[in-house]
Amino acid sequence: MESNKSTGVIESSPRRVWVMRWGHRPSRDARLTTHVALVARALGASGIFVTDIVDRGLEHVVNETVENWGGSFKIETGVPWKKVVENWKGSGGITVHLTMYGENIAEGDVLKRIKDTEKDVLLIVGCQKVPPDFFSKEVSDFNVAIGNQPHSECAAVAIFLDRFFEGRPLRSVQQGGQIKIIPQRRGKRVARRNMENRSVGDRSSQASKPMNWTTI
Amino acid sequence: MESNKSTGVIESSPRRVWVMRWGHRPSRDARLTTHVALVARALGASGIFVTDIVDRGLEHVVNETVENWGGSFKIETGVPWKKVVENWKGSGGITVHLTMYGENIAEGDVLKRIKDTEKDVLLIVGCQKVPPDFFSKEVSDFNVAIGNQPHSECAAVAIFLDRFFEGRPLRSVQQGGQIKIIPQRRGKRVARRNMENRSVGDRSSQASKPMNWTTI
Repeated sequence: MESNKSTGVIESSPRRVWVMRWGHRPSRDARLTTHVALVARALGASGIFVTDIVDRGLEHVVNETVENWGGSFKIETGVPWKKVVENWKGSGGITVHLTMYGENIAEGDVLKRIKDTEKDVLLIVGCQKVPPDFFSKEVSDFNVAIGNQPHSECAAVAIFLDRFFEGRPLRSVQQGGQIKIIPQRRGKRVARRNMENRSVGDRSSQASKPMNWTTI
Repeated sequence: MESNKSTGVIESSPRRVWVMRWGHRPSRDARLTTHVALVARALGASGIFVTDIVDRGLEHVVNETVENWGGSFKIETGVPWKKVVENWKGSGGITVHLTMYGENIAEGDVLKRIKDTEKDVLLIVGCQKVPPDFFSKEVSDFNVAIGNQPHSECAAVAIFLDRFFEGRPLRSVQQGGQIKIIPQRRGKRVARRNMENRSVGDRSSQASKPMNWTTI
């Protein structure tokens, strides 16, 4: 992913990462899966597949975030996980299963080996105990542990992406959107896009110029 | 924090970080706060304060994790947040409020300025909208954004700690505990401490020697 130094806007990425969230249960996992999706978006992933179960509420929350805050992050729910993996591998991508049992990202060279493939990455995370298949090479090209202690799939996705993209997405402004934060040492400062300067669906760089934003 | 190269065991840290979780609602936030606590532990924090409300269930889950997986991570619930901040500052520590409105950790020098204080850090995270006081210098010495986009307090704690400790806790084995993972490229490998070699409360380095573990 390249960042345009003059605008901080993320250019189209030469390296796509999507997250595949397996085992989502809408009643129990709504907030955690929402967090995983928002983390994926904020840390540079292009989209998330929430497999095997349709969740329109989750789609709505994520799409609303994209509408408000910009970017082109996508969510698809209800796709069978085997189909996602097959399609990803079929189109030349690699799969990375995040699991506490895998190779430790902070030891050895697993991150370098993943980067060296120069291929698009499907990042697989469970939220229940995953089927043993997930560890096989038919499903996962790499099994990676964000440390070998129990913690959180949300944190695992965050740290993988932060290290994979070397923090660039955190520095970048997402294109489009209605609101953005102007970072401050104290207090809150938020800018809202002037509606008269923006036609529906207008996400051109012209529309992102500071003159089109009002601090609120 | 220093890691003993021969054992990978974390030595007593010269720089303590505790997390202060504000606004926890046991019915709604149980899983997210559990994740925040486990992330704090796995990424090198010494403990977590969950303020203003007692949650024995949460304490039990976290203490059980420490008992099984080692280390000396502590949890305290129900302490008033003002008291936590007062005591921390009173004993010479600094406070860092994680907020999407703050200085971006990936831009500028905020992380360096925090490290340069060489003081213990109280990492403050909300889970609802926090009181405006949190942004004041009476409460927060630093307001830090893990990017200025909405995502997750769980990911924010993870990335702050990963960058603050430069990944060392992810590489380290926690002292004591009953089980540990032996990282693998494929599949799961877990070792369990031999009970006959361990007396109750025995967390000496002697008890951590590989000969006292059985792969299961």
